[in-house]
Amino acid sequence: MATVCERSVESLPACPVEVTLTLIGNKWQVLIVRELMEGTRRFKELQRSIGGISQKVLTGNLRTMEENGLVHREVFAEVPPRVEYSLTPLGRSLSPVLDALRVWGENYRAALSAE
Amino acid sequence: MATVCERSVESLPACPVEVTLTLIGNKWQVLIVRELMEGTRRFKELQRSIGGISQKVLTGNLRTMEENGLVHREVFAEVPPRVEYSLTPLGRSLSPVLDALRVWGENYRAALSAE
Repeated sequence: MATVCERSVESLPACPVEVTLTLIGNKWQVLIVRELMEGTRRFKELQRSIGGISQKVLTGNLRTMEENGLVHREVFAEVPPRVEYSLTPLGRSLSPVLDALRVWGENYRAALSAE
Repeated sequence: MATVCERSVESLPACPVEVTLTLIGNKWQVLIVRELMEGTRRFKELQRSIGGISQKVLTGNLRTMEENGLVHREVFAEVPPRVEYSLTPLGRSLSPVLDALRVWGENYRAALSAE
């Protein structure tokens, strides 16, 4: 796993489920991970694909995820400057979590459709 | 999967990851599922094992989860009445999601400890 910045082991909850929830603690952050699993994205692209997220909330969550070592932010010296977001190896390691969420959602929809 | 009440297929988001996040949309609900995976619990037992949750927040989340078909609430006609909470088959089907969260949390802690 990648270098994990800003956090110490002592600051983590005892329960590993809670550890994960601390790191991707809200719905928006999970959806950001989902988007970035597909590849590098610019801010506007993220905002478009995550319906209903405001600029402020997206900025705040991206910053938190950067601090937690999940997201990498790269600024290209162009005019106007281009900023791209991608997952770090740590962020990409969330892939099985996203898969489990996806499978459960698909089964739930199927169960509801079958009623 | 169990009978799923209150929701229609049309009300669900298109993305299955979002479907799951809609059904267990916050940290507290995930922790309630984690506790109830271990077995039936009374209200006070849930409150004790989920650190930092207020009575009001626990009540509200349990009600939402009952409406979403994840949690079963059973009232026993005793004096004083005993109320017990358990997972429905649908709730128990979240087990792979909880496993994925647990494994990732364990790996994260290990990575942080190794630095």
